Amino acid sequence: MSMKRKKISVIGGGFTGATTAFLLAQKELGDVVLVDIPQAENPTKGKALDMLEASPIMGFDANIIGTSNYAETADSDIVIITAGIARKPGMSRDDLVQTNQKVMKSVTHEIVKHSPNTTIIVLTNPVDAMTYTVFKESGFPKNRVIGQSGVLDTARFRTFVAQELNLSVKDVTGFVLGGHGDDMVPLVRYSYAGGIPLETLIPRERLEAIVERTRKGGGEIVNLLGNGSAYYAPAASLVEMAEAIVKDQRRVIPSIAYLEGEYGFEGIYLGVPTILGAGGIEQIIELELTEEEKAALAKSAASVKSVMKVLQ
Amino acid sequence: MSMKRKKISVIGGGFTGATTAFLLAQKELGDVVLVDIPQAENPTKGKALDMLEASPIMGFDANIIGTSNYAETADSDIVIITAGIARKPGMSRDDLVQTNQKVMKSVTHEIVKHSPNTTIIVLTNPVDAMTYTVFKESGFPKNRVIGQSGVLDTARFRTFVAQELNLSVKDVTGFVLGGHGDDMVPLVRYSYAGGIPLETLIPRERLEAIVERTRKGGGEIVNLLGNGSAYYAPAASLVEMAEAIVKDQRRVIPSIAYLEGEYGFEGIYLGVPTILGAGGIEQIIELELTEEEKAALAKSAASVKSVMKVLQ
Amino acid sequence: MSMKRKKISVIGGGFTGATTAFLLAQKELGDVVLVDIPQAENPTKGKALDMLEASPIMGFDANIIGTSNYAETADSDIVIITAGIARKPGMSRDDLVQTNQKVMKSVTHEIVKHSPNTTIIVLTNPVDAMTYTVFKESGFPKNRVIGQSGVLDTARFRTFVAQELNLSVKDVTGFVLGGHGDDMVPLVRYSYAGGIPLETLIPRERLEAIVERTRKGGGEIVNLLGNGSAYYAPAASLVEMAEAIVKDQRRVIPSIAYLEGEYGFEGIYLGVPTILGAGGIEQIIELELTEEEKAALAKSAASVKSVMKVLQ
Amino acid sequence: MSMKRKKISVIGGGFTGATTAFLLAQKELGDVVLVDIPQAENPTKGKALDMLEASPIMGFDANIIGTSNYAETADSDIVIITAGIARKPGMSRDDLVQTNQKVMKSVTHEIVKHSPNTTIIVLTNPVDAMTYTVFKESGFPKNRVIGQSGVLDTARFRTFVAQELNLSVKDVTGFVLGGHGDDMVPLVRYSYAGGIPLETLIPRERLEAIVERTRKGGGEIVNLLGNGSAYYAPAASLVEMAEAIVKDQRRVIPSIAYLEGEYGFEGIYLGVPTILGAGGIEQIIELELTEEEKAALAKSAASVKSVMKVLQ
Repeated sequence: MSMKRKKISVIGGGFTGATTAFLLAQKELGDVVLVDIPQAENPTKGKALDMLEASPIMGFDANIIGTSNYAETADSDIVIITAGIARKPGMSRDDLVQTNQKVMKSVTHEIVKHSPNTTIIVLTNPVDAMTYTVFKESGFPKNRVIGQSGVLDTARFRTFVAQELNLSVKDVTGFVLGGHGDDMVPLVRYSYAGGIPLETLIPRERLEAIVERTRKGGGEIVNLLGNGSAYYAPAASLVEMAEAIVKDQRRVIPSIAYLEGEYGFEGIYLGVPTILGAGGIEQIIELELTEEEKAALAKSAASVKSVMKVLQ
Repeated sequence: MSMKRKKISVIGGGFTGATTAFLLAQKELGDVVLVDIPQAENPTKGKALDMLEASPIMGFDANIIGTSNYAETADSDIVIITAGIARKPGMSRDDLVQTNQKVMKSVTHEIVKHSPNTTIIVLTNPVDAMTYTVFKESGFPKNRVIGQSGVLDTARFRTFVAQELNLSVKDVTGFVLGGHGDDMVPLVRYSYAGGIPLETLIPRERLEAIVERTRKGGGEIVNLLGNGSAYYAPAASLVEMAEAIVKDQRRVIPSIAYLEGEYGFEGIYLGVPTILGAGGIEQIIELELTEEEKAALAKSAASVKSVMKVLQ
Repeated sequence: MSMKRKKISVIGGGFTGATTAFLLAQKELGDVVLVDIPQAENPTKGKALDMLEASPIMGFDANIIGTSNYAETADSDIVIITAGIARKPGMSRDDLVQTNQKVMKSVTHEIVKHSPNTTIIVLTNPVDAMTYTVFKESGFPKNRVIGQSGVLDTARFRTFVAQELNLSVKDVTGFVLGGHGDDMVPLVRYSYAGGIPLETLIPRERLEAIVERTRKGGGEIVNLLGNGSAYYAPAASLVEMAEAIVKDQRRVIPSIAYLEGEYGFEGIYLGVPTILGAGGIEQIIELELTEEEKAALAKSAASVKSVMKVLQ
Repeated sequence: MSMKRKKISVIGGGFTGATTAFLLAQKELGDVVLVDIPQAENPTKGKALDMLEASPIMGFDANIIGTSNYAETADSDIVIITAGIARKPGMSRDDLVQTNQKVMKSVTHEIVKHSPNTTIIVLTNPVDAMTYTVFKESGFPKNRVIGQSGVLDTARFRTFVAQELNLSVKDVTGFVLGGHGDDMVPLVRYSYAGGIPLETLIPRERLEAIVERTRKGGGEIVNLLGNGSAYYAPAASLVEMAEAIVKDQRRVIPSIAYLEGEYGFEGIYLGVPTILGAGGIEQIIELELTEEEKAALAKSAASVKSVMKVLQ
């Protein structure tokens, strides 16, 4: 019967973390704590205050604070992890993995200490391996550790299709399995405009070009920005997942989930269709796949496993 | 009878411009064109694309493009100017004024060429003098050239008051006249919580401290960020003004307006209460001021005039 | 470049018309004129005023007036027709058709006189024949006379499926062709939960029961109410169609459209997938149908034609 | 840490109750249970189902059920009472009071039995006496039994002022003390447009006419409708109060609150400015009144007491 506001903590106060915090507050999903390392504490406080000062204009009631002190995150209902570094020129993939793994371990340690019953959503790349790291480190049940990639991948796909057909984005859907980006397994046969299969609306080669552009969607933004990576659509993706959980919506959303036999995989975090509700991942939906799709998913899983081998 | 989408151009693709574009699109106020200089064209395109890719998730239908080509802004219903430089350490005030004046002239030239019937909202600092520059350069009627400062100043004030009283920001209002920041003339007697004058709810010295913090509100964020200035609340302020015009809401909003005798001033842009609707500034509301308020406003106007003297 | 508010007129001030007016205003889609016959003018004014008095609380700026004077509807961007009688016990179908036909003729005459460039959306039953009547009487191009049934039918279907699967309604879609209610041709193979075909998620007999319940969906509400028929979901359906047009969203929405060869029919209004945008019905989407679906659609069309024969 | 949906029950399935249920669901404030007497169970179920069928179109996730079984309301976070009869021609005021008192007692008994920790908002007229009845019958602490009248009265006032000045309703505020309707004590000096006191914007006699129209605002709608009373604005008022509590917004909202010395009254429910948050009425705000206002409030309180004398 408690009317206590929900509390959502966002770890990492960079562009993605800050935009996520802003969208969460705007939707009045709860009070928001934006956390970064001590060296970045002041900028994080500055962003939080700037957002809060938008609240009277935009008409939302949500407290937003910036901090480097995890005690402020105590009893969060949801924690979203955006912390970590991006791959820099000259950095090997293994270095990236191991650096972000250390960040995940440290962050998870703090989260678990202060919010032992929370649900964690991970964005940090490589997201499959990082979600696995958080899962192991937290000791949480698998339904409460979730990775994001499919919402973003399908959003890009939907954007490109809506442009191609000159239609509302509201009526275009996409479907993806497996890992993020290059490892993505798009299920075009489950993608529609107004319920009509895209395969009947868009010529095959155009559709393939759109899928390819989607795979490279993160890189396209990186190349344009020149210095940094996408944050608006990633933030929106995280917020959609958090909202489904906070409001117990039981939405059908692609998540990076821990598989224990589903789709033939064991002990690996991989992108699959899930039902998100109050319990986090409340269900993994298993689909019949074609042989071709099975092969693509196996390739994607192999790629995730090769990253996991680098984990220490 | 035309259902053509509204079109809003935002000049300046930095944090404020980009956040403004994102909020405009989110509210489906129209299609958005984000413009920056040719050297920044790719990052601007990157931000626009990233925002667009959030649209299927957030459920808004609005095209967003980034460009350095003003032809893309043709026939904008509203143009918002956020372009210009921020004052850097060691830079004199006069250098800042003259540099941004050049930017305003060049930008205005392009706007007028492509959207001769548009309404312009200016954010660039020093905003009173810059709005005056755009007004003169555009040759537009005064109702269609408007500066922003009061929405932001009162939003900060309202935030601090809501925190002080632990109340919803929805129920706190503020009122300000004159210039931006240090030149601000707060009318605390016209500021309320739930309609109750703040003077009866907050001790005088606390209220004065809040006013002082509001005056320095921009600097507080600058100091915290360390490298940059506020953009969330400024963007929200611009969007509120644009929405009032696009939707012809006839809202009572503080604007930087061209005075021709109102409040005893002539030929100067200064912050006053206005009615914003389809016609831009449809009315300036004149209030009876106390002697003290009159003196403060005169001081604020003198400060604006001293900046205007630097204009070339 | 005009910021003039859009204007939407709703003909018929009963429950559906009033609820439609309320939702249109709430979304700030434009100013709303609710029209009824002179004998009902005062109640219509009362409802409009009551709605308007909700606007400060709900925060929408839209004028709403009630009237029996069509001059007040002048230059409407959209006109929605909900007027007409419901079938009463003992009334023959032919009497219903002819009575409502007279209403349509009279209403259309007034609409055309005052808003010669508007777009008309028809809800009155039997909706296929009534939309045809309005089309003929108005002399409007076919893209500007549209009937509603598929949005409502699929909304009911989606509700029942969401309940069956205990999922968010946001992720369930439906698809329907043909006439309204009993004449509905559901295309279950184009209906999904989270993009996954319903046929793989719900046993065939349950799905058939849901389709059957959808067909009888209007009657289910009539039976429960005892005295009157559904109005919340019908109003929401009309508003979705109007919004797509007013905001030029190019949404894929099932509409009752005038067919000139599409799906093999000529000179008949029938439910088909359409693209709704600023131009009204901007496109009819033709799908490949199975033989079974073709037969069902032919049956539905025959049923519509048999009603059309009663038209005078 | 529970993400369980909030649950809000609305007692009385007439127009006001149903519209309240619809708006609560639309805002996703929780699942909604609409309750009426057994004889009205089917219509109540019909309305609830019709609303639910609007949810896929409008995009809200909230269950809505109609019932006559209070067991379905178990563990409601909020209960809103709209049940009771309206005064009919020839009915004495005392008959009305005593009839509705019986309804309140019976309804309260059921509410307390099934939701012992809930917060109750009362709309039934005469609302001051009916809120008192619910308070006494429930044995609840005073902060959890609240009456509605000031939100509605000020909404009407704000509507009329916005029309008078041709301004956005968003920028007009009103302020009222005391009983509902004729007993209303408007504090015009605390009412503003854009923060500017209305007394400086509207001539005295026009303002008095607006106040008088507000007092008779309920009757104006009754007269227009001919058969029934207002329900859109009353429902919006109830939803605003419920939202403030459910989201713990600490909004400054006029409520009918139990006074224990405030404003010099004891043991009476009367309209006063309050802070509504998770704890229901978290604070009563006491204002300095002029002698004239004190006298008006005393008259209003006397009127409430005279109704309370009729209670059995």
